[in-house]
Amino acid sequence: MNVVTTIGQVREQVKAWRQAGYSIGLVPTMGYLHEGHQSLMAAAKKDNQKVIVTIFVNPIQFGPSEDLASYPRDLERDKIACEKMGVDLIFCPTASEMYDANFNSYVDVNGLTDALCGKRRPGHFKGVCTVVTKLFNITQPDRAYFGQKDAQQLAVIKRMVSDLNFDIEIIGCPIVREADGLAKSSRNSYLSECERSAAVCLYQAIECANAMIKQGEKSVTVITKAMHNLIVNQPLAKIDYIEFVDLASLTSVDRLEQDSLCALAVYIGKTRLIDNFIYQHH
Amino acid sequence: MNVVTTIGQVREQVKAWRQAGYSIGLVPTMGYLHEGHQSLMAAAKKDNQKVIVTIFVNPIQFGPSEDLASYPRDLERDKIACEKMGVDLIFCPTASEMYDANFNSYVDVNGLTDALCGKRRPGHFKGVCTVVTKLFNITQPDRAYFGQKDAQQLAVIKRMVSDLNFDIEIIGCPIVREADGLAKSSRNSYLSECERSAAVCLYQAIECANAMIKQGEKSVTVITKAMHNLIVNQPLAKIDYIEFVDLASLTSVDRLEQDSLCALAVYIGKTRLIDNFIYQHH
Repeated sequence: MNVVTTIGQVREQVKAWRQAGYSIGLVPTMGYLHEGHQSLMAAAKKDNQKVIVTIFVNPIQFGPSEDLASYPRDLERDKIACEKMGVDLIFCPTASEMYDANFNSYVDVNGLTDALCGKRRPGHFKGVCTVVTKLFNITQPDRAYFGQKDAQQLAVIKRMVSDLNFDIEIIGCPIVREADGLAKSSRNSYLSECERSAAVCLYQAIECANAMIKQGEKSVTVITKAMHNLIVNQPLAKIDYIEFVDLASLTSVDRLEQDSLCALAVYIGKTRLIDNFIYQHH
Repeated sequence: MNVVTTIGQVREQVKAWRQAGYSIGLVPTMGYLHEGHQSLMAAAKKDNQKVIVTIFVNPIQFGPSEDLASYPRDLERDKIACEKMGVDLIFCPTASEMYDANFNSYVDVNGLTDALCGKRRPGHFKGVCTVVTKLFNITQPDRAYFGQKDAQQLAVIKRMVSDLNFDIEIIGCPIVREADGLAKSSRNSYLSECERSAAVCLYQAIECANAMIKQGEKSVTVITKAMHNLIVNQPLAKIDYIEFVDLASLTSVDRLEQDSLCALAVYIGKTRLIDNFIYQHH
């Protein structure tokens, strides 16, 4: 496994792989890798002859009051995880390698970023789209892998790739969960023992919604209210949002009569966690 | 020479060329080709084994009151011009091939687009950067050729390519002029005979500025005033702007003490023409 920090080093390796006719899979991450990332690496490994993992805590996707400085980092542990998964190349640049002093170009997707996290984190998806565009252009992969846990991000990236004609297949991979249902996330490391117990309320709300849907409930108001009540019972939890949106357009839905995404964001203490599930209409 | 209208057809051809190891040069145009475009094609032909010309009047770079509907088009004549220059592939898509109904992704460069034409044509460079990103991703060239006549566009594209890590060399080609000095432009076709005579005032203003600079004049105010006086003497002309800016940042300069761009935009009747020259500081 090769670990490089400069764009030039990646280009050199990719060029050699391209000339040898190898297919390339990209797993873009912010590091502090967990089983969710590992499932992306495994999918990339299965589909491609070479796998690149990028590890970069992208400053421009964090708001001024967000957790850029405290975001967890452990490159040595990440290297071991990548090595175990058979990754071929890690690209872990510095911020100045990615953004020079005169940097001033941005990629943005309108519409899809108006709801959910986009509404609460202005500029977040612009930062994501910009860094993903850069990583696509640097690594020139055949396929790129993103977690369904970040459902809005996945939808936005797919739209961007289609709109801007990137010749890259975007593959979404299922949410990986802890034994009690908590979605794997690097930010789970922020949680105290008490908060960790409380954090299961996101998954419980999802389970509750799924049970109601199975029983035939179609009203988003009724389902959301039940999810809301379940979470507010947990004193350490504070709801940021619980929303049902159309799976394609991410615009609000009132009744479950089309393929929909139910997404929620909840603060557990100071830690903002997200989770979601997809409702498939039959 | 192959003439295609769909993205899929371009990808197929580019893939075959890539597999054969050919280098590819791209000349993006809005058609109605003139000697300026031909000089770009000649440069592309010299540097690359295959040359793609795109012909697309990009709707999203026109403002609501601009000349999208009347922009001159003559695909049959353009094909002959490309054939003569040894072009290998023309890509001339429809607007709906380039922008589907849900299209919502944009690329923008801040800062460089605040001055000159960017200031007068809000959204113009966002439209340019977006379509150029799409054309880059569709044609995947080694090199792309742009005219120095659109000096701000060239600076913006270079910045975008550097910021977003496109693996493409951007080559600017000198302004091609008519015998009397008027810069070649598809929009010159709008000019009546009377207006065509008047249009030489842009070049006369540039010649006047260059003569003053040769005589040692450093004051932008003094030079701009002389250019202004020369153009206002022409009754068919109405100045949009005459500006001197730093060649790299495109921010205003007061004195010629650094590499600078002098750019001007002048209405001749209803037709907006642009021209420019570069001052190299020694």
